[in-house]
Amino acid sequence: MRVLVLYFSKTGNTKKLAEEIAKGVNEVKDVKCVLKSTSEVTQDDFVKSDGIIAGSPVYFGTMAAELKDVFDKFVGIRRQMGDKIGAAFATSGDETGGKETTIISIIQAFLIYGMIIVGDPLEATGHYGVACIGTPDEQTAINAVKLGRRVALLVKKLKS
Amino acid sequence: MRVLVLYFSKTGNTKKLAEEIAKGVNEVKDVKCVLKSTSEVTQDDFVKSDGIIAGSPVYFGTMAAELKDVFDKFVGIRRQMGDKIGAAFATSGDETGGKETTIISIIQAFLIYGMIIVGDPLEATGHYGVACIGTPDEQTAINAVKLGRRVALLVKKLKS
Amino acid sequence: MRVLVLYFSKTGNTKKLAEEIAKGVNEVKDVKCVLKSTSEVTQDDFVKSDGIIAGSPVYFGTMAAELKDVFDKFVGIRRQMGDKIGAAFATSGDETGGKETTIISIIQAFLIYGMIIVGDPLEATGHYGVACIGTPDEQTAINAVKLGRRVALLVKKLKS
Amino acid sequence: MRVLVLYFSKTGNTKKLAEEIAKGVNEVKDVKCVLKSTSEVTQDDFVKSDGIIAGSPVYFGTMAAELKDVFDKFVGIRRQMGDKIGAAFATSGDETGGKETTIISIIQAFLIYGMIIVGDPLEATGHYGVACIGTPDEQTAINAVKLGRRVALLVKKLKS
Repeated sequence: MRVLVLYFSKTGNTKKLAEEIAKGVNEVKDVKCVLKSTSEVTQDDFVKSDGIIAGSPVYFGTMAAELKDVFDKFVGIRRQMGDKIGAAFATSGDETGGKETTIISIIQAFLIYGMIIVGDPLEATGHYGVACIGTPDEQTAINAVKLGRRVALLVKKLKS
Repeated sequence: MRVLVLYFSKTGNTKKLAEEIAKGVNEVKDVKCVLKSTSEVTQDDFVKSDGIIAGSPVYFGTMAAELKDVFDKFVGIRRQMGDKIGAAFATSGDETGGKETTIISIIQAFLIYGMIIVGDPLEATGHYGVACIGTPDEQTAINAVKLGRRVALLVKKLKS
Repeated sequence: MRVLVLYFSKTGNTKKLAEEIAKGVNEVKDVKCVLKSTSEVTQDDFVKSDGIIAGSPVYFGTMAAELKDVFDKFVGIRRQMGDKIGAAFATSGDETGGKETTIISIIQAFLIYGMIIVGDPLEATGHYGVACIGTPDEQTAINAVKLGRRVALLVKKLKS
Repeated sequence: MRVLVLYFSKTGNTKKLAEEIAKGVNEVKDVKCVLKSTSEVTQDDFVKSDGIIAGSPVYFGTMAAELKDVFDKFVGIRRQMGDKIGAAFATSGDETGGKETTIISIIQAFLIYGMIIVGDPLEATGHYGVACIGTPDEQTAINAVKLGRRVALLVKKLKS
């Protein structure tokens, strides 16, 4: 089983958060994490994954064009994505500056891909996903691991 | 296993859509559908259900206060809701008048309850949920059944 | 000219934020601020105001049912609200726990009332509105004043 | 005074809707409409306009990457955009398939640019903006004109 952690990162903050989430995925036996940036990812990565956790810095309230472009371009494989697991994360420069609406924009894309959505679990913050301002601090890193693990465990439960 | 179909309905349209969704739930063996309005539902209905499909008419772009009040009041059982399945539906008077944002408002509540979210399946419209203008027509009824069935099948897969 | 600052508050935090915003409104000559809770407000307050700034604590990702109920109940005066100014604020318990989506839910209601929307100005944070975790700190209070002043100045420009 | 009508269009439907909106802008004396696609628009078009009405086809629930890329790239002029007027439109293939959330995604970008937002006026549908499925029909075209006129009239009121 496989979970793709997909990110766009310019300053490195979103990449760092992606790496923490990947740790959580890798804690789950039999689930392999593939960590890729938007410039590396292929349609095949989408099709071969059982779950995708995608993240972006906050640019004007929704995911960066670079990540949106991936979703838009891969429209041809939409019918192969039903019932895979989806989750989202974001990093921003401002406290109430679009982290939530960026996560929701990614969740909306996953819903239209026909996927099954989870936020970060109740033992993290129990909201839309994992987010932070700037580089992830210790608490965010812990929550990121919990999100990765949640997705991997759900993949395992549904696919085995 | 149990799926709650919860609705607020003033004119009867949302109730009719709820009834179609309930049919889809009942098609799945071993899953029982409980159909309740916002004035009938109890905290216990939330706790005892393995999935909830909630719907509202569109009032000013988000779910009606009557449905929001249910989510707000039941905050005390939030920690018991993690990993149940959630999905949403809406009826409106205008084509681009808030059906989507109403469904998203319900999905946001379910995410904060820690739940696992699905939209209507790719073999329906493959979007946020089921919606219609006024009373559900034949195509909407078919999609409603598909949403109900999707939630029931996922409940069965996760809980058995 | 008149601006209504409308809030629902249980713990007092949202009321405090409302009071800071009201200060900003009152800084503008010829604009009177009316500060009311959801249990005090009347349809007449909506009709007689040239702008409304509404706020709520975050309950499950959108405005509290108490505030939504006000918008829902006043539907009869919708046609008298076109071109009034609207803005929003929120308080929450969690950093990425629904402040933004709560503000957006209020903005959506104002758009459907036909109103003209502003967020907090660029000299504050330049985002959807004013928000904080818990009780407003000094910086939030400064931004709240800026939001109140922005709405009052726009009312003055449009109505005089 | 100047209003930019900005669109991304692949099949031509969103361009047609943009052209209808442009007619409404041009009905207002002293306001000039500039109609441009995402591949033609420049930062200077943003800065020199007093209002922007932007539209996109629905791709996975938010604006197309091509339009998002324009907003992202022009971040450097954000501080010059405060108090300009913003509005949005969308075209889709499915009735409840993302028209609203696409419009909201554009409104969110405009709010973070510090702009003043309007939806389509109460004498149109009185919701988030103008939208249609496929090519604009007669009623949509009428509403599109009303949105264009609303933005142009507000520009005139605020800038003169």
